[in-house]
Amino acid sequence: MDYQTYFASRLRDLRDEGRYRVFCDLERRTGKFPMAVNHRDGETHDVTIWCSNDYMGMGMNPVVTNAIAEAVQAVGAGAGGTRNISGTTHEHVLLENELASWHGKESSLIFTSGYVANLTTLMTLGQQIPDLVIFSDALNHNSMIEGVRHSRAPKKIFKHNDPKDLDRLLSEYPKDTPKLVAFESVYSMDGDIAPIADICDVAEKHGALTFLDEVHAVGMYGEFGSGVAERDGVADRIDIIQATMGKAIGCIGGYIAGSADMVDFVRSFGAGFIFTTSLPPGIAAGARASIQHLRQHNELRIRHQERAATLKRRLRELNLPVMDSVSHIVPLLVGDATQCKQASDLLLRRHNIYVQPINYPTVPRGTERLRITPTPLHDDALMDQLVAALLDVWSTLEIDQQAA
Amino acid sequence: MDYQTYFASRLRDLRDEGRYRVFCDLERRTGKFPMAVNHRDGETHDVTIWCSNDYMGMGMNPVVTNAIAEAVQAVGAGAGGTRNISGTTHEHVLLENELASWHGKESSLIFTSGYVANLTTLMTLGQQIPDLVIFSDALNHNSMIEGVRHSRAPKKIFKHNDPKDLDRLLSEYPKDTPKLVAFESVYSMDGDIAPIADICDVAEKHGALTFLDEVHAVGMYGEFGSGVAERDGVADRIDIIQATMGKAIGCIGGYIAGSADMVDFVRSFGAGFIFTTSLPPGIAAGARASIQHLRQHNELRIRHQERAATLKRRLRELNLPVMDSVSHIVPLLVGDATQCKQASDLLLRRHNIYVQPINYPTVPRGTERLRITPTPLHDDALMDQLVAALLDVWSTLEIDQQAA
Repeated sequence: MDYQTYFASRLRDLRDEGRYRVFCDLERRTGKFPMAVNHRDGETHDVTIWCSNDYMGMGMNPVVTNAIAEAVQAVGAGAGGTRNISGTTHEHVLLENELASWHGKESSLIFTSGYVANLTTLMTLGQQIPDLVIFSDALNHNSMIEGVRHSRAPKKIFKHNDPKDLDRLLSEYPKDTPKLVAFESVYSMDGDIAPIADICDVAEKHGALTFLDEVHAVGMYGEFGSGVAERDGVADRIDIIQATMGKAIGCIGGYIAGSADMVDFVRSFGAGFIFTTSLPPGIAAGARASIQHLRQHNELRIRHQERAATLKRRLRELNLPVMDSVSHIVPLLVGDATQCKQASDLLLRRHNIYVQPINYPTVPRGTERLRITPTPLHDDALMDQLVAALLDVWSTLEIDQQAA
Repeated sequence: MDYQTYFASRLRDLRDEGRYRVFCDLERRTGKFPMAVNHRDGETHDVTIWCSNDYMGMGMNPVVTNAIAEAVQAVGAGAGGTRNISGTTHEHVLLENELASWHGKESSLIFTSGYVANLTTLMTLGQQIPDLVIFSDALNHNSMIEGVRHSRAPKKIFKHNDPKDLDRLLSEYPKDTPKLVAFESVYSMDGDIAPIADICDVAEKHGALTFLDEVHAVGMYGEFGSGVAERDGVADRIDIIQATMGKAIGCIGGYIAGSADMVDFVRSFGAGFIFTTSLPPGIAAGARASIQHLRQHNELRIRHQERAATLKRRLRELNLPVMDSVSHIVPLLVGDATQCKQASDLLLRRHNIYVQPINYPTVPRGTERLRITPTPLHDDALMDQLVAALLDVWSTLEIDQQAA
């Protein structure tokens, strides 16, 4: 087989479909957030980022950058090993204590990413709990889907955010069959939020474990910022909380929190945890400083929600097709892959505004969109620029303004 | 089902088998490598680390720590997104250029870990190349095994480091069947090295792609340090080189290097690459500084090999059961899980020397061992202490000195 020709032909297909991804080469600068320098075509351009998952700007906050710089100078760069073989540093221990305390759980466990946290935890539970059946929300993230799939446990997909459908599926199994319900709080592409209490009611009725992905919620919801489960007063009903330190916390890495034995079980049997170098201790120090800051600064969350609500209102007033969202995520429907890419290109090249096009397979075909994420640091002047630029782009491309 | 009771009972089984893992809480200190502070039982103890995969001490090298600290202060902590959605920073672009140049390949792609690089690349190739058959060395790392398994491509396991057996298995398929041969250069638990040229001969004869894991070799082999394939003059015969920045490079993160189209193919179709926050740009800056240093300092590699050879010779002279190893890894056979843990505990508590026990499933039962990794910074005085401590432990525990 001619492998290179095959690779090239598959890439050509992506280009023909308008789905070939071109990464935007950015140089973020501390003190300038949400501005950045975009390197393209051998030149540099100052742009405003409107699609970062550094939702609270904590990745650029001196509280975090100073903590990392100081820790790296004190304890070094990499951890130097897996957690079991010389790679557990005191910063890991302190961060796991902080995370457990934040979520009100007995214990927590850090992974190298949220992706690996989901994959490893769901795989481990699915493989190691005999006869476990996994009930998974229809819109769960790829990392959860892969974890369930690779566990080879039987899985049932329930309708998105639909406790009734979940109840119907759970009813098909005797109460003593081991079960796990896996879902997210904030769904990142649509910005809707799960009815966590209702899902817990159904799960409890059928004796199922609950696994909640809060990656797009930690730092942003609840008075102390530990997520929607905290905001809704139901954190104690979640058996396994999973989240990331790569978004609102502004660093990298994933984790789970829950009972001491559950966490120890995943620690002891999870291949994706055992066989990998642990996070750099400096990053752990930065994440801990960030969480401590976020716990104490609810005003950041109030400002964050206001910014999102204001942007949604302004877009709606101008008949721009903002999709239904009850969270900090502001999706704007385009509905076509090529047009979505064109809209993003125009924003960048004509208006120096960076919003990445979101195409299949991240979202279903026909729902291609611009996904805008205002942070507490996007002020009114920046929002004025964004709204004017979007109006220009929609008018230039003649995108149907009533599509949403 | 009572999940908590189940978790507790499985953990009890591990303890009964002597395989329950207790992590060693370490505080590494720049300027003190390979010394560290061990937090245990509410006290701190100064210890010497003899089991780090920070093989060259680069994680504690000011070249690396300064590069990270400066970059974090300049461009922030986390990347803020996936590579496609605002998470490609200029530091990622520069690092990928450096890696490609180092390996003499057209292109490279960074992952959050070596584990994810293996898992994602093998899964993607196995799923996306129709009818691909994967030929995998019997001792490949868990991350490669999981990647092959999850791809659901047919797999054939060839005898460890045995080109003849590989040839036999490849001969079972027509030449035009797509094939991939996956193997490692340095096997990290035994310290043996693959006959890369012979494996390439066989792979070429049968029209198979070659995938070489150099995670325990980059930085340490070859005049410019890019691995055993460089040392053996066969890097151009490897289609996909995979490695890590978490070991000799002293940071974290994995990568692949190869042809532009192959790398772009994995970039475009690899879920474990697409759906995860990219590495912090400061870590990318540190890794690049480390690689540039390692490329220019072959004397570190000469010293590294001398240290390992000296330790192996000294252990053999004292009839301590050092296992056959032709690399920088010095495994010392114990052969029993409980005794291996006891040996490690005695080294730590009586001699302030930290060498983690390596038990099943990392190595087969009956081959439990201490795995010692001398670095260029372990001097003769430290080696004297280690050798004396090992003699004391072997004598205290009455471990069979002729076991190896």
